Amino acid sequence: MTSLQLTAKEEVLEKFLDAAARGDLDQVSTLLVHAPSLINQSGYSGWTALMLAVRNGHYDMAERLLSLSCDQFCVNGSSQTAYDIARFWGHRHIANLLSRTDGASQHVLPGSEVVPQENYFGRETLDRLSGKRTDEVWLEAKQRHPETVYLLFANLSPMLARSEAGEGEWGETRLCRFRHDAVQDLLLKPATILIFLGVERKKNPSSSSRSQTEDGPQEPPAWFAFNTDEDAAELLKRCKEKNCFFPKTPTRDLLKLSEDEAGVVAQARSVLAWHSRYSFCSTCGSSTRLEEGGYKRSCLNSSCRSLQGVHNTCYPRVDPVVIMLVVHPDGNQCLLGRKKIFPAGMFSCLAGFIEPGETMEEAVRREVEEESGVKVGPVRYVSCQPWPMPSSLMIGCLAIAISTDIKVDKSEIEEARWFPRQQVIDSFRGTHPAFVFPPRQTIAHQLIRHWIGINANL
Amino acid sequence: MTSLQLTAKEEVLEKFLDAAARGDLDQVSTLLVHAPSLINQSGYSGWTALMLAVRNGHYDMAERLLSLSCDQFCVNGSSQTAYDIARFWGHRHIANLLSRTDGASQHVLPGSEVVPQENYFGRETLDRLSGKRTDEVWLEAKQRHPETVYLLFANLSPMLARSEAGEGEWGETRLCRFRHDAVQDLLLKPATILIFLGVERKKNPSSSSRSQTEDGPQEPPAWFAFNTDEDAAELLKRCKEKNCFFPKTPTRDLLKLSEDEAGVVAQARSVLAWHSRYSFCSTCGSSTRLEEGGYKRSCLNSSCRSLQGVHNTCYPRVDPVVIMLVVHPDGNQCLLGRKKIFPAGMFSCLAGFIEPGETMEEAVRREVEEESGVKVGPVRYVSCQPWPMPSSLMIGCLAIAISTDIKVDKSEIEEARWFPRQQVIDSFRGTHPAFVFPPRQTIAHQLIRHWIGINANL
Repeated sequence: MTSLQLTAKEEVLEKFLDAAARGDLDQVSTLLVHAPSLINQSGYSGWTALMLAVRNGHYDMAERLLSLSCDQFCVNGSSQTAYDIARFWGHRHIANLLSRTDGASQHVLPGSEVVPQENYFGRETLDRLSGKRTDEVWLEAKQRHPETVYLLFANLSPMLARSEAGEGEWGETRLCRFRHDAVQDLLLKPATILIFLGVERKKNPSSSSRSQTEDGPQEPPAWFAFNTDEDAAELLKRCKEKNCFFPKTPTRDLLKLSEDEAGVVAQARSVLAWHSRYSFCSTCGSSTRLEEGGYKRSCLNSSCRSLQGVHNTCYPRVDPVVIMLVVHPDGNQCLLGRKKIFPAGMFSCLAGFIEPGETMEEAVRREVEEESGVKVGPVRYVSCQPWPMPSSLMIGCLAIAISTDIKVDKSEIEEARWFPRQQVIDSFRGTHPAFVFPPRQTIAHQLIRHWIGINANL
Repeated sequence: MTSLQLTAKEEVLEKFLDAAARGDLDQVSTLLVHAPSLINQSGYSGWTALMLAVRNGHYDMAERLLSLSCDQFCVNGSSQTAYDIARFWGHRHIANLLSRTDGASQHVLPGSEVVPQENYFGRETLDRLSGKRTDEVWLEAKQRHPETVYLLFANLSPMLARSEAGEGEWGETRLCRFRHDAVQDLLLKPATILIFLGVERKKNPSSSSRSQTEDGPQEPPAWFAFNTDEDAAELLKRCKEKNCFFPKTPTRDLLKLSEDEAGVVAQARSVLAWHSRYSFCSTCGSSTRLEEGGYKRSCLNSSCRSLQGVHNTCYPRVDPVVIMLVVHPDGNQCLLGRKKIFPAGMFSCLAGFIEPGETMEEAVRREVEEESGVKVGPVRYVSCQPWPMPSSLMIGCLAIAISTDIKVDKSEIEEARWFPRQQVIDSFRGTHPAFVFPPRQTIAHQLIRHWIGINANL
């Protein structure tokens, strides 16, 4: 067989993909009955049946393939999903079909491109029930409740447990959970800071009747987190799980949790870090008292100005940061930089804190010009990510350059470079990488990935 | 003449609008030669020639009308601009034409809808030159420079001057500007807080040669702001302008500045308010020293943790807030609420602070449900606005409701209601208002206006 000949299997696949591209529902259905696995197979340059149908605007075909549970999230050779292709070719009704998370609510904003991008640390696992923070009786009852979950932090690091994994691999990492009786002595220590995180969301309301007690319908379990300054080795002995530890490098170790647990850690670590840094009143220098389940600190000096009216000094701090992928005016290169502290070879998006009196868009322009000398025109918000080191909100944007000369501010970054699109794709895939891609848990990774997707040469 | 007959003028207008709607370039040109004022005239329901051309996808016609300087920002009877109409009808290339601010940079993001919405307090009038904040020699030279501008704040209110206006009307309000020699005694007082704001942006580089001195090319003037606790009446005597005053209600009086000056005040007041609230180290309670042109405070206790590494306690605080227009699942009503402190009859968007570990989108969902009981699905970012009371960043979003029952949290708001689209339009125009619209300087106003525009029944 020469390389030009097709095997019988390849021939069927070609036929199938061709039918999908033409919108031939009958032929696609017939072929799938005989070979269901065709549905996610790809041909030239990684294009699946769904991608081809979408490319040519065949709404019915896309709907049929989705109803047969095809994988709508696989990517082609240009790292694009079917959704990316639908958007690129302007088939908005198909894009809506593919992005639909709640069928009833998408049509309300014409022209809206609702991309529910979820970033690591961004999942809201618990219901914060902020109204309960001032209900001390309720909070105390929850603290003693046998189903309540406690997360234990020492020096702002949560106690974690690692599954055993073969051949030196890193196993699954998860939060150690404690019950009240296992930690109540620690909660009584004066240096302990306790915060209320929320209650578990009801994932399946219909099954809630199963967990009723004699006292009536059961409320979902509450979660608390606390930070203690007790000896770490002694603390680890309290845990019944094997391989428990306190991470030494949060920026690395906290990226190994599940999405659900990462969301809880984002909230807990940010608030605990605030208590650690803000235990004195910044307005008068006096000591403060923790209130409202850990979401407020009030000055103990009764004549302090911060007690008159509402003052931000009493509430946790969130630092908004812009992080942006700057795209070359030619549309086919992007600007990435590296800091000295990055792992070898890694390049990532530029970023910086939003200043007082500044919009997000202006902060993007100022930071990019300061760090790289490149001027930026239009800016578009993409998605955001809480980053609990200690308490940032990373606001991810795409930005279009209107100048291209790079002049790096060495006090901020070590190097900045325009990377051609193909180099970025190769680096993402790991084939002939031009640079080390930032880890998938970072919004920088997601922004670069997003750009690869929306702007390909289809 | 009966009401069915048209005047000669009306007949010409009808002909002109009809030609524009059909894309008849020749006829439109001919009519404009004879009657140039036709270009911005409107017919049925306020539709102009540009709107009709855009509605029907006539790109060439839109281009021609724009080249003849037609007003592209006027609105029709549904309060829509030509741009809104282009987006609604999916004529993306025409929408791009209408939104183009920099012709070279718009094509880079396919599918991008770059709406350069500028909100009050959002203009970046000065170049902050943050790199100069650590250059004490440069800063001192700028302070003494005769062209340097000083803004004087007392109790965080800037000194303003008001033009005289007839018949009890409020005249133009502007910032009082001082030179170094007029305020140097105040700058030496220990309670004075001085911050560097930046330098004027070069608006017209070609004319800069005019302002050269013997020392070579002149740098643009620098701006500083300072807060003093001296007697307000005495301070007012220093100003040579008539009708100068310190505003008593910043949330009202600071909304009367020009866009340029509002942008400067947003920066100055936020940073000065930070100094007023954060003069003690929150980590150890010691006093702090002002550094870096007013953008850093360092603890004077040499053993304080805040001096090891970089800590947010040393830098100005910006509080991110979500403010959202919640749209009914039917697309034709929006949810507005009122707080007790609002002026009589005013309803506005819901809003709330983003909490630690929370995304913008989740903050929108949490706040709306807490305040009104309404559940929210998709959320889309629209634009943002710095709000220097004291230092918020208002992040404006549209949100789609997935439930409609309202249950107000009376501790947060007094009332919340679904307002039908027509009532919102009537209230915006002031014809039969169902409620008092928030002032145009607020992002709430802009969000509601934006929604009217994108979602009309064309």
